[in-house]
Amino acid sequence: MQDQRTSDIEWMRRALTLAERGPEADANPRVGCVLVGADGELVAEGWHDGAGTPHAEAAALAAAGDRASGATAYVTLEPCHHGGRTGPCSRALAAAGVTRVVYAVSDPNVAAAGGATWLGEQGVAVEGGVLEDEATALNRTWLHSVRTGRPWVTWKLASTLDGRSAAADGTSQWITGPEARADVHERRARCGAILVGTGTALTDDPHLTARRPDGTLHDRQPLRVVLGQRDLPTTARVLDDAAPTLHLRTRRAQDALAELARRDVHHVWLEGGPTLAAAFLADGLVDEVVAYVAPAFLGRGRPSVSDLGITTMADILRLEPADMAFVGQDIRITATIPTPGHHPTDLEADT
Amino acid sequence: MQDQRTSDIEWMRRALTLAERGPEADANPRVGCVLVGADGELVAEGWHDGAGTPHAEAAALAAAGDRASGATAYVTLEPCHHGGRTGPCSRALAAAGVTRVVYAVSDPNVAAAGGATWLGEQGVAVEGGVLEDEATALNRTWLHSVRTGRPWVTWKLASTLDGRSAAADGTSQWITGPEARADVHERRARCGAILVGTGTALTDDPHLTARRPDGTLHDRQPLRVVLGQRDLPTTARVLDDAAPTLHLRTRRAQDALAELARRDVHHVWLEGGPTLAAAFLADGLVDEVVAYVAPAFLGRGRPSVSDLGITTMADILRLEPADMAFVGQDIRITATIPTPGHHPTDLEADT
Repeated sequence: MQDQRTSDIEWMRRALTLAERGPEADANPRVGCVLVGADGELVAEGWHDGAGTPHAEAAALAAAGDRASGATAYVTLEPCHHGGRTGPCSRALAAAGVTRVVYAVSDPNVAAAGGATWLGEQGVAVEGGVLEDEATALNRTWLHSVRTGRPWVTWKLASTLDGRSAAADGTSQWITGPEARADVHERRARCGAILVGTGTALTDDPHLTARRPDGTLHDRQPLRVVLGQRDLPTTARVLDDAAPTLHLRTRRAQDALAELARRDVHHVWLEGGPTLAAAFLADGLVDEVVAYVAPAFLGRGRPSVSDLGITTMADILRLEPADMAFVGQDIRITATIPTPGHHPTDLEADT
Repeated sequence: MQDQRTSDIEWMRRALTLAERGPEADANPRVGCVLVGADGELVAEGWHDGAGTPHAEAAALAAAGDRASGATAYVTLEPCHHGGRTGPCSRALAAAGVTRVVYAVSDPNVAAAGGATWLGEQGVAVEGGVLEDEATALNRTWLHSVRTGRPWVTWKLASTLDGRSAAADGTSQWITGPEARADVHERRARCGAILVGTGTALTDDPHLTARRPDGTLHDRQPLRVVLGQRDLPTTARVLDDAAPTLHLRTRRAQDALAELARRDVHHVWLEGGPTLAAAFLADGLVDEVVAYVAPAFLGRGRPSVSDLGITTMADILRLEPADMAFVGQDIRITATIPTPGHHPTDLEADT
């Protein structure tokens, strides 16, 4: 039925727009919900505004009141079926008399899933997968961390065109321009944690906060995480009270990510030096690279990444390019790392 | 007079379009000419099709015949005033009764310049500088080489995101994909010469021709130039008969460029390894960089450029970004190197 399908997509698109109003870096996913009456008219809408606030379905049902009866609910994520802080949305939808539920992406959270099945058992018409790709992109890091049990890791690097992130004497301020650095701070603010090694913390004494160009702090600060066994001086800037800080006394990337997953961190912004970056890359624990490349040369100096154990072209670590943009004078390249075992081979075909 | 100015720009834009029909890599500049009658109607047009063919003005005058009398000539380059192979265009325009000459960019060639002044002395109305930037861009490498006495040098590099142009074991096929390599061959075909050092010639035994993806040669082949004092084996692929080859037994970049200028080469495509590239860069002899960056990491291996004598950030070699594009899976970054003495400082302002 083409008409039904078309209107399903239109209403789901509206639900996705509502979902975007939620905070990107919260422990919870961003979800939107639209209730549409049997007459095809909008009844009510809602979205989730972060931990401690109502789920999108609950917000829409509250706004609809009695008019929810007989309505279709469009939800960007499968309605939850566990208690949580707000009661299961599956039961609330059925109790309100909603007769059809259309959702975009299934809930990968074992504790919360099952809403679609349960609703079907209650006689509610249920359909999933409408605009699934868009809904997946919206909560990419949250879905990844729930599915895999470890946070999505973005490695941010800044280097010259010849791959240097510091000059031979160690100076590195500034490879990239102010626009690129402001871009980094905005992206820091949307992550759950920002991670460096003790080497960087001791050498550069970074603050690791998310700041605006005027130096003031963004409203949201990610958890500051320092990885490694060496002690930090109590005067380290990363230990001030501008944001919470966690010193993980391990050298294993995997352990650090497991600990952060336990703390509901879904997106880690990795700003380590070349050694820490190489450790994460070599362990297959980087999901995405955001590279700020300055159109400049140094010739010598610190490389952006250390030894990866790669000695020949056949083992090169290939990424999938996703986006590029000028940011001031610099070039921002975003690329994802294919899941292990998947190597794009078309590039090697023409030898 | 707004109307006159507007129509001048429109006719010059047409002349520029004609100029683009000429060969890009010829020893001569690309020039277009439009003749417009007193009634504002097109009389004739012409363009220069490469050495040995008529100049654009001569082609347009021949097409116009008697109707050139009283016309305005729009020419993208100041009409020449020397003999050359086709007689001075200045005299031809005056003799044909052209009453006004509008040109875009002055002729920097000492032997050919003076056309505008001479025409003015004959009572012809002369105006220069219309769409000068566009006309300059059209013949950028030719104008540069005539003005400075040395060819425009484009350094082409292919590297990973971490600045490696070969793996630790020396393998480098292929860092970039087939689309990027095809792009390189098209650009080779538009240059006057392609230059490598004896090191690259001996190690990689490159063909240095401009080839289509199916392996056939482009119609036009640049001069193949090998720089350095070491002998090449007679079996070297660069010495075959696919294109002319020049072995310049010098290690000085400046000497090589002077010799190529004497041979009417206006655009050198530098494909040397990291040492040759560093020598040209350090001497301030690279005008433009075309970097093909593969979204990939090697961690170790040959860097794209060797020591430039830069030890600290204050001496970083900054380029002006001009363009970026995806070419297949790779990213092509084009940037120009500011003339010596000019360093963009805005990037350093926010320290």
